[in-house]
Parts: sequence; structure tokens; C-alpha cells
Amino acid sequence: MTVGVPTIERIRVRYGETDQMGHAYYANYFFWFEQARGAWCRARGFTYKQLEEYGYMLPCVEATAAYKGEVLYDDWIQVKVWVSELKRASLRFDYEVVNESTGKICTTGHTWHVFMGHERKAVTVPTEIRDWLNRDPSDYEPLT
Amino acid sequence: MTVGVPTIERIRVRYGETDQMGHAYYANYFFWFEQARGAWCRARGFTYKQLEEYGYMLPCVEATAAYKGEVLYDDWIQVKVWVSELKRASLRFDYEVVNESTGKICTTGHTWHVFMGHERKAVTVPTEIRDWLNRDPSDYEPLT
Amino acid sequence: MTVGVPTIERIRVRYGETDQMGHAYYANYFFWFEQARGAWCRARGFTYKQLEEYGYMLPCVEATAAYKGEVLYDDWIQVKVWVSELKRASLRFDYEVVNESTGKICTTGHTWHVFMGHERKAVTVPTEIRDWLNRDPSDYEPLT
Amino acid sequence: MTVGVPTIERIRVRYGETDQMGHAYYANYFFWFEQARGAWCRARGFTYKQLEEYGYMLPCVEATAAYKGEVLYDDWIQVKVWVSELKRASLRFDYEVVNESTGKICTTGHTWHVFMGHERKAVTVPTEIRDWLNRDPSDYEPLT
Repeated sequence: MTVGVPTIERIRVRYGETDQMGHAYYANYFFWFEQARGAWCRARGFTYKQLEEYGYMLPCVEATAAYKGEVLYDDWIQVKVWVSELKRASLRFDYEVVNESTGKICTTGHTWHVFMGHERKAVTVPTEIRDWLNRDPSDYEPLT
Repeated sequence: MTVGVPTIERIRVRYGETDQMGHAYYANYFFWFEQARGAWCRARGFTYKQLEEYGYMLPCVEATAAYKGEVLYDDWIQVKVWVSELKRASLRFDYEVVNESTGKICTTGHTWHVFMGHERKAVTVPTEIRDWLNRDPSDYEPLT
Repeated sequence: MTVGVPTIERIRVRYGETDQMGHAYYANYFFWFEQARGAWCRARGFTYKQLEEYGYMLPCVEATAAYKGEVLYDDWIQVKVWVSELKRASLRFDYEVVNESTGKICTTGHTWHVFMGHERKAVTVPTEIRDWLNRDPSDYEPLT
Repeated sequence: MTVGVPTIERIRVRYGETDQMGHAYYANYFFWFEQARGAWCRARGFTYKQLEEYGYMLPCVEATAAYKGEVLYDDWIQVKVWVSELKRASLRFDYEVVNESTGKICTTGHTWHVFMGHERKAVTVPTEIRDWLNRDPSDYEPLT
């Protein structure tokens, strides 16, 4: 069961992601969480884009973040992401953001997503897709 | 004790706030929450900008959202916001977003904020500011 | 020929639209231009959303902005927008942004848009839509 | 005179950067231009952040983009950026965006920036900074 193996995505903070307080605006972390989810898929040999091409979407139904330390313009952050729960028709990602300039965890969070099919209704995760999600990233070359 | 009296801010969803799924991207709700907090202040006769001019900031230390229904481009939403807890050095806002096109609550959430002073350290909310926060909006003309 | 009659959209600057320089980040003006285009349509009794429901899209093929003065958090701005050219398959909007806190024009700009149909190819503006664009806003109650 | 040597920054398009038309929203290119300017500095052995720490800012006073082709979610783009003019107190960057999925230039643009000092007034570019801007990137290890 490979649910739980984390993937790390490095992101550099853009100027436009700061606010007049001088650090990254709180909403922007959710863009970074999304980028990390994309990397999580690629580490398992598929892309979220392919998932949508197959007719599935993973809209977010719950999102949280706890901000414990600053992130500044031009900082490199590492967003560590893993699947912490995989249910019949939904899954949960957890996140830890490390600011490389301090080496400390600056933010944690999670998101819940439901599987939606063509009719924009929640559906059971099909077996094939479930296999994708359960892949062990050590068996795959990450997609670039 | 007027903590708890809600303020409502109407916002129309921008095209640039949607994503290719066809509805509003999940991170953008936190921009709307922030706009609603600004309206909450103005309903009490002060602005968040004045708070910063006084030397205080209210960085967000926790943010959550639960997405229960869609919000589409050009929809009017009503963000209802109220203070649900006011501690010595922090406060919590709660949010309910109603999509006017359906009349239903589509999203709920909350944010926690700490008071920070000039030295960017958490400080006890000063009495004067505490009075602002405890104001009864029915005693004030909302600032425009 | 009513091409040219301007529409004005008032927008209050969000905290998340500022950057660490302390004023509005330069990319965000293009979100405001888009919001103003939406208001321009509503002033003529239709919405851009209806245009898309009819099967047409107006992707932007050129965008410019000249920044002459600051826009700060919580400022009210007025985005004045008008159609300056209407060709067979494209149209140009021009913009003037006035910062209400100074009363001065702080930004000007323009955008070019092409008409695209279902097949995502440029198409001649159909007569019915051309009539919408040529409407005199004084003949219409603006949609809310 | 090294003004003119281009730097290339690769960026992957985020889901939150798309809109309901299904491609990248037009305003987001300006975030990418900014990220590319940061890379341009690092290729010359300094960072824009250092420039601000020295007391200078480079606010944008003019920005343009011409959109010639689509950019979709998950596409890799290459933003090529170079200084096309360096005046006494301002400079111009030019941009070419290549979509790696097609190999074609999908967008071009430019931005003008003025040098501002502590008093937020335009200033002549000081000699030391001018030397930074004139550096030949082949003499420097790009900062990471």
C-alpha cells in the first residue's frame, strides 16, 4: 500500500505572491498545494491532466492551512505532499511546507477531494485510477 | 458584547477567478474572505488600513474552507463574516458564502489572526483596538 | 453608432492584490480591466456570460497598460472602459483608471479581443451580437 | 555591452492559472514575466531581492503582451527575457514565450521599469547597479 509515500515539490516565491505585509499572501499557499499535487501524480507516472482526459476531476471540497512561519519573496519552499486517506469516492492530501531559507516547517495543511465523472457527480474511484493512486513512486520514473 | 454580529459583503465572481473546471478556483475564496473582513471593519466605523496605520497587523495563522456547492463566473456571492472568538492576542472570523444564483450556502470557513505590532511580534490587543472590535455596527454608519 | 460610449466600474483594491512594494501588483490591473468589460456588457443589457452561452468567446490577443500613479490597498478605483474599434472579427477596448483617493488617472490601457466560435476559430461577429455591441447604454437598464 | 543577452526561465502552468475557457488567463503571463526577470538577475550573479535590499525598486510603468497561441494547464513554457533598452533611470525588458508542447512562440511582450530609491522617486541608476545590469552572464554562475 503506497498511500502515504510523500512527494516534494520545490517552488520559488514570486513577487506577485507577496502582499504589503512583506510576505506571501495566505491564499497563495493553496496554489502551491495544487502544484505539489501535480508533482505527486507525476512521481507516480501519470498526470492530473491525464486524469481529466479520462473523464475524471478531483475538485477540492475542503482546504486548510496553518501558518507557523513566514515565507518571503524569492524564498525557495519545499511542499511535501502525501495521500493520508483514500476512500471509496474521495481522498485527502496532507502538506508540509518547509522554507529552505530557515530549514523549518512554516506551514501545514490538508485538502479533501472528491472524484467526479463526466456528469459532474461524485463517483467511486474506478479500479484503474485507484491503481494509479496506489502506485509506489519508487517503481516509476517521475514524469517531467 | 457585539462580537458575533455578522457583516455581509457582496462580490461578483471574476472570469480570472475561474479555472478550466468551469467554476471558481478554490484558493480565490480566501481573497473573498479577506474582502469581507475589510467590510466587517468598515461596518464598525474603521478600516483595516487604519489598523495598519496604527502599527498593528492581523496576519492569518489558520485558514479553512469547506466547499459544498459551485460558484460560477458572474455569480453574485454574499460573504457573511463574523468574529466568533476574541482572545487576548488573536481573533477568529467565521464565514458563510451564499451563492445568490441558488440562494444556498455554498461554502463555509474560518480564519484565525494574531495581532502583531511594529516589531512583528504577537501583542495583546490594545484596549482602544479592542473597543473597535467590540463595536456594535448598528451604532455606526458603515464606511464606504 | 454607440461604439465609444464609456462605462465605469468601481472596484476596491484587495489586500491580496498588493505586493511587498506596498501598492497594487501590475498584473492585477488586467483582472480589473476584465471586470470592467463585464460591466460594459451589462450596461448594454447583456452579459459576457450570455455571449459564451451563445457559443462565442472573446479571448484577449493583446493587452497593454501604462502605469502613471500608485494604487494602494483599500483605494477605490474607477475603471472607465469603452470600445474604441470594432472590426469584422475583433474589437478593442480602451481603459482609463482613476484613483478616487487622488482623483487622477493612474493607469491607461487597451485590450484587443477576437471573436471565437464553437470550433475555437476566429469568426465574423454575427449580426445579432454586433447589434448588442452597438447598443446605446442610455436605452438600457444596466443589468445588476 | 551585455545588454541584450537573453535568459530563459522554464515555468509549468498551474491549474489555478487557467480560466473557464480552458487556457491560461491573460493576466497570469505578467506573473511569469516577473519570474523571468528574477531569473535574468540570477543569471548575472545577483537577485532582484538584493536590489531592493540596496534600497532600489524597479516598479513597472508599462506592460504589454501579444497572445498568438494557447497555453494550457500543465504545459511547460519557456520565457525568454532580455534587456532591450537601458536608459539613465529606466530599462525595458522584452519577452518571448515558447510553449514547449508546440515548440512555437505563443506570446511576446515587454515591460518598462523605472529605478526608484528610498524616497520612492525615480533616480539615475547608480554606477554599481549599472555594472550589475551590464554583466555578461557567461562570466557568472547563475544563482540558484
